[in-house]
Amino acid sequence: MMKVNVCTDKKTYDVVIEQGVLNQAGSIIEKVAPASRYMLIVDEQVATHYLESFLQTFTQTAVHVSVVPSGEQSKSFAQYERLLNDCFEYQLDRSSVIIAFGGGVIGDLAGFVAGTYMRGISFVQVPTTLLAHDSSVGGKVAINLEKGKNMVGLFHQPELVLYDPQLLQTLPEKEWRSGFAEIVKMAFIADRDFLTWLEEEVDSLTSIEGESLVRMIERAVALKARIVQQDEQELGIRGMLNFGHTLGHAIEAELGYGAVTHGEAVLIGMAFALKLSERKHNIDLASDRYIAWFQSLGYTVQIPSSLEITDLLSQMMKDKKARHGTLHYVLLSALGKATIEPITAEELVAELTVEKGGH
Amino acid sequence: MMKVNVCTDKKTYDVVIEQGVLNQAGSIIEKVAPASRYMLIVDEQVATHYLESFLQTFTQTAVHVSVVPSGEQSKSFAQYERLLNDCFEYQLDRSSVIIAFGGGVIGDLAGFVAGTYMRGISFVQVPTTLLAHDSSVGGKVAINLEKGKNMVGLFHQPELVLYDPQLLQTLPEKEWRSGFAEIVKMAFIADRDFLTWLEEEVDSLTSIEGESLVRMIERAVALKARIVQQDEQELGIRGMLNFGHTLGHAIEAELGYGAVTHGEAVLIGMAFALKLSERKHNIDLASDRYIAWFQSLGYTVQIPSSLEITDLLSQMMKDKKARHGTLHYVLLSALGKATIEPITAEELVAELTVEKGGH
Ligand SMILES: NC(=O)c1ccc[n+]([C@@H]2O[C@H](COP(=O)([O-])OP(=O)(O)OC[C@H]3O[C@@H](n4cnc5c(N)ncnc54)[C@H](O)[C@@H]3O)[C@@H](O)[C@H]2O)c1
Ligand SMILES: NC(=O)c1ccc[n+]([C@@H]2O[C@H](COP(=O)([O-])OP(=O)(O)OC[C@H]3O[C@@H](n4cnc5c(N)ncnc54)[C@H](O)[C@@H]3O)[C@@H](O)[C@H]2O)c1
Repeated sequence: MMKVNVCTDKKTYDVVIEQGVLNQAGSIIEKVAPASRYMLIVDEQVATHYLESFLQTFTQTAVHVSVVPSGEQSKSFAQYERLLNDCFEYQLDRSSVIIAFGGGVIGDLAGFVAGTYMRGISFVQVPTTLLAHDSSVGGKVAINLEKGKNMVGLFHQPELVLYDPQLLQTLPEKEWRSGFAEIVKMAFIADRDFLTWLEEEVDSLTSIEGESLVRMIERAVALKARIVQQDEQELGIRGMLNFGHTLGHAIEAELGYGAVTHGEAVLIGMAFALKLSERKHNIDLASDRYIAWFQSLGYTVQIPSSLEITDLLSQMMKDKKARHGTLHYVLLSALGKATIEPITAEELVAELTVEKGGH
Repeated sequence: MMKVNVCTDKKTYDVVIEQGVLNQAGSIIEKVAPASRYMLIVDEQVATHYLESFLQTFTQTAVHVSVVPSGEQSKSFAQYERLLNDCFEYQLDRSSVIIAFGGGVIGDLAGFVAGTYMRGISFVQVPTTLLAHDSSVGGKVAINLEKGKNMVGLFHQPELVLYDPQLLQTLPEKEWRSGFAEIVKMAFIADRDFLTWLEEEVDSLTSIEGESLVRMIERAVALKARIVQQDEQELGIRGMLNFGHTLGHAIEAELGYGAVTHGEAVLIGMAFALKLSERKHNIDLASDRYIAWFQSLGYTVQIPSSLEITDLLSQMMKDKKARHGTLHYVLLSALGKATIEPITAEELVAELTVEKGGH
C-alpha cells in the first residue's frame, strides 16, 4: 500500500494511494477514523458511478448520505447551510465523522462543513479527480463568495485521505488535463527528476494508468505535502505553488469561471512564466520543447486572443500579494527550482505584449 | 487601567476594563491591532447610542461600518453571508481587522466572520452588555442553525477586548439580569469570596456602578479566563461553566427563545441545581437565602408552571453530554466549588417533581 504521511502542527495523517482501495474504504475508515456515525458528502456524478459500491464497504457504522450537485457553483452558502442542517438532522455529534467523496469541490465544501459544525468535527477525504492530489493535501477548505473564489474558509486537516486511482477511469478528459497541469507544476517548481520522468512517461493523458498512475500521484502528493509542511500558514515558500497561477487566475476570471478548467488556465500561465523566466534570468529552460509537449497532450498554450492585456493586468493586480503596482511573481531559476520575484506592471505589459503578439 | 491577561495556546491578549475607555478606543485599537483598514460590525441599538463617538476616536485608519439588527436572530446564515460580502466589498485583506461592537450576539457573529474570511483575519471585541464578560473570553464564536443554537462556529481568539462599563448605562434591565446571572454563576462554581462580596454589594441591579461595577466585571472575566485557560478545548473543567445551564437551556427551548433571556433561564437552573446539590450531597448551601436574594433582584426562580416535566426532560436529554439516559450534571460540593456528576433521568424527574410541586 502506497502511503504519504503528512505532518502538520496539529495532526499527522496518511494519504493512501492504491488501485482498488475503494473496495475496502469503509472498513479502513472505520478503523482509522472510528465514529458514532458518518455523513458522506458526495458529488452527484461520483454518486452515479460509485456510491453503491462504496456504501457496501461499511460494515459497522451508519452512513448518512448527502448528494451535492456537480460543479464549482456548489461551493456556495446555500449548499454550506443545507449540509450543516443535514448534519443536525442526522444528529451528528462531536464523535461523528464527515466523509468527502468527490473532487476538489467536494473536499473544500465538506471540509468547511466539518471544520465548523459544532466548532469542528473530523473528516476523511476520498478524492475522485486527478486534481485532488493537490486539494486533498494542505488542509485548506473553503467556499466562494459570489465575487470571490475561496474567500471563506479555514485550515482543517483530514484524518485520512484514501485515493483510489481506478476511480479516474470515468473522469472526463478535460478534468484529466486540469489535474495533470498541477502535477506538471509541482515538478517544475520542486523536482526536476520528476519532470524528466513525466516527460518520458506521458505522451497522452489517456495512457497514464496502472502503477505509473499510482507513482505519479504519489510523487505529486509527496511534493505538495513537503511544501505545505514547511510552511503551513502560507507565509513563504508555499507561495511557489502559485507558479502559473497569477496569469492563470486572470484568464479564468476574464473568460468567466468554467469556460476553461482551472488547470488548463494555469497551464497557459506556466507556459508564459517559463518564457518569462528564460528572458528575465537569461537562461535556457527548454521552454519550446515543453510547450510542444503540452500541445501534444491537447492543451492550448496561447493566451486566448479575445482577452485584452489591460484586463488581464487589472485582474492580476487584484492578487492578494500585489502591492503598489508590483506583483510577487513565481518564476524558475532552473527546472525544478522556483523563486518568487517582484515584477512591475510595466514589465508585465511588455511581456504579455510579446507573448500575445508571438502567437 | 484594569486588565486581565488571557493566555491561550495560540495567542495572548488583554481584556481592558475601564470606565470611559470608549473615548480612546480607536487609538488603542490602532496601536494594539494595527490594520490596513477596519470593519466595524455593530448592533443597531448600540449604533444609535455610541457609533458616532466611537468612530471619532480613530485617527489614522479607515473604518467601514456594517450595522446588524439587534437580537439573537442575527446569528444567522443570512447575516453571516451579508457580512462576508461586506468584507469583500470593503476590500478587507489579511492585514485588516474586524471590530465587534455590541453584546454576545455581535461578538459571536463578527468573530465567526473574522475567523473564516480569507481563512481567518484578526478581530477585536468592544463589548456592550454585562453578559459579554462571558462571551468575550474563551474564543468561542458561532452562528445558529434554525433548530440548533451555536451549532456552527469555531475557536477564534480576539487580539484585544476593550470593555467600557459606562456603556451599560443604556442596557435594558432584563439584559442586566441576564448578565448578572452568569456572574453569580461564576462565583458559585469557582470563587466563594466573590460570592460573599456580591451578596453584600448588590442589593439592586440598578445600583451597581462605578468602581464596584469595574471590579465585578474584572473578577468575572478573570474567573472565566482562568477556567478556559485550563481547558481550552472544553474537554474537562470548562464543563463547570454549565452550572444552571442544563435546565436553563431546556426552559429557554421550551418557552421559545427570546421569551426569557438566557441568564434569566440559567438562574432558574441554578436555583434548582443549588437545591439538588444540597439534597444529593446532604449539605447546607444556604439555598433559601440565595433564592430570596435572587427574588429581591427581580428574578423569577420557579420553573414556569406552563412547562411539563417530561418536555423539560427530553430537552435536557438532547444535551451534547447526555449518554444512555444519564446526564452529566454540574452540582456544587460547597459554595465556590463545582463538581460534575452523573444523574439519571429517573432522579431528575423525581427532583423536578419536588421543585415544581414545591412552589
Ligand atoms: N483545498 C485546496 O488546497 C485546493 C487545491 C486545488 C484546488 N482546489 C479546489 O478544487 C476545486 C476543483 O477541484 P476538481 O478539479 O477536482 O473539480 P470538481 O470537484 O468540480 O470535479 C470536476 C468534475 O469532475 C466530476 N467528477 C469528479 N470525479 C469524477 C469521477 N471519478 N468520474 C467522473 N466524474 C467525476 C465532477 O462531477 C465535476 O463535474 C476548485 O474549487 C478549487 O478551488 C482546492
Ligand atoms: N461565545 C461565548 O462564549 C458566549 C458566552 C455566552 C453567551 N454567548 C452568546 O451571547 C449571546 C447573548 O449575548 P447578550 O446577552 O450580550 O445579547 P445581545 O448581544 O443580543 O444584547 C442584548 C440586547 O441588548 C442590546 N444592547 C447591547 N448593548 C447595549 C447597550 N450598551 N445599550 C443598550 N442596548 C444594548 C442589544 O441590541 C440586544 O437587544 C447569545 O447569542 C449567546 O449564545 C456567547
